Amino acid sequence: MKLRREDIPEVVIMRLPLYLRMLRLLEKENLQVINSEELGRRLQLTSAQIRKDLSYFGRFGKQGKGYNVSSLKEELSRILGVDREWRMALVGIGKLGRAILSYGGFAPAGFRIVAAFDRDPELVGRRVSGLIIQPMNEFEKTVVEKKIQIGIIAVPPTEAQGVVDQMVKSNIRAVLNYAPVMLRVPPNIKVRNIDPVLALESMTYYLVED
Amino acid sequence: MKLRREDIPEVVIMRLPLYLRMLRLLEKENLQVINSEELGRRLQLTSAQIRKDLSYFGRFGKQGKGYNVSSLKEELSRILGVDREWRMALVGIGKLGRAILSYGGFAPAGFRIVAAFDRDPELVGRRVSGLIIQPMNEFEKTVVEKKIQIGIIAVPPTEAQGVVDQMVKSNIRAVLNYAPVMLRVPPNIKVRNIDPVLALESMTYYLVED
Repeated sequence: MKLRREDIPEVVIMRLPLYLRMLRLLEKENLQVINSEELGRRLQLTSAQIRKDLSYFGRFGKQGKGYNVSSLKEELSRILGVDREWRMALVGIGKLGRAILSYGGFAPAGFRIVAAFDRDPELVGRRVSGLIIQPMNEFEKTVVEKKIQIGIIAVPPTEAQGVVDQMVKSNIRAVLNYAPVMLRVPPNIKVRNIDPVLALESMTYYLVED
Repeated sequence: MKLRREDIPEVVIMRLPLYLRMLRLLEKENLQVINSEELGRRLQLTSAQIRKDLSYFGRFGKQGKGYNVSSLKEELSRILGVDREWRMALVGIGKLGRAILSYGGFAPAGFRIVAAFDRDPELVGRRVSGLIIQPMNEFEKTVVEKKIQIGIIAVPPTEAQGVVDQMVKSNIRAVLNYAPVMLRVPPNIKVRNIDPVLALESMTYYLVED
């Protein structure tokens, strides 16, 4: 029985990119086969967890022989859809937006920012990192023309909800949000928050003296 | 029986800041009491999950009456250690480092960047966002003098491991890493990665047409 995409728990989907990253590393180390115990040790997960997560997608590896690193990597890339290029639009070209535009991690992973928007008329028309900054009223049209599938929000917190609403109206279904605010979106829209404060608040626990 | 800090699963600790953020929001809405069902609905978690997570820290709320929003907020702030100010050192003052220095989300949450470092002699001595950029050989001394507990890494991926090694040597036990690379640290050191590509790769799954 094949599960539908939506039936697989989202926490499982969120772990797959970690598996994929580790498999890419192992491939670079010229490792050809790895078992779930060793993969678990490297990822600090139990081997049972790894086997269960992967079992949602069919049978990988042979009993007692482990996983073939390259083919599991290929398979996960295909499942996650990271075997192709994704086109993104960035809204908000302040300091943060500029840092995002020059971030070196997106391109090698197949994520390309192909359009940049800001509501400030002073910024519109200027060139940053090879893109001409466009006004927000060109957003919907540009998403269609440039086949954009992902939106990135780097505006101040008070403006973020308005921007995500406009993205949803333009048929964007995946949003990377850098604004320190929780966005309200319809259930079929995915949002991931880049939130350094949440990350910090989950570490200070360990710094407190009992 | 009181559990020791280290005995509580890290995934639970990582959810607490989300609870805390929601409680702050509810307090702003002047809500005084909330039950686990409603809190779960707001956070998209089951009420059983919420009750289980909180049960690690003792008894909150009265049977059938729900949680007092303000006192649960205070309690979680205290447990997480976010009821005080934390002092941070930033290493790497390129575009990303500058965006981090001007990020508005840290200060209201009690996180203050009090020192900035770069290995580039051209940058050392310059002033950014009120801080004089220091050379890396002043790192250890400055951590002691300024009572710094958290390190932030915003250097290129090839330099990040060297920087985290130096942080660990300087008795930093919590590191926020913006470099797109997995860092190796001793088990008593906490690292959280700010990794937009992992976030993107867990959304493209939902964009792929079956």
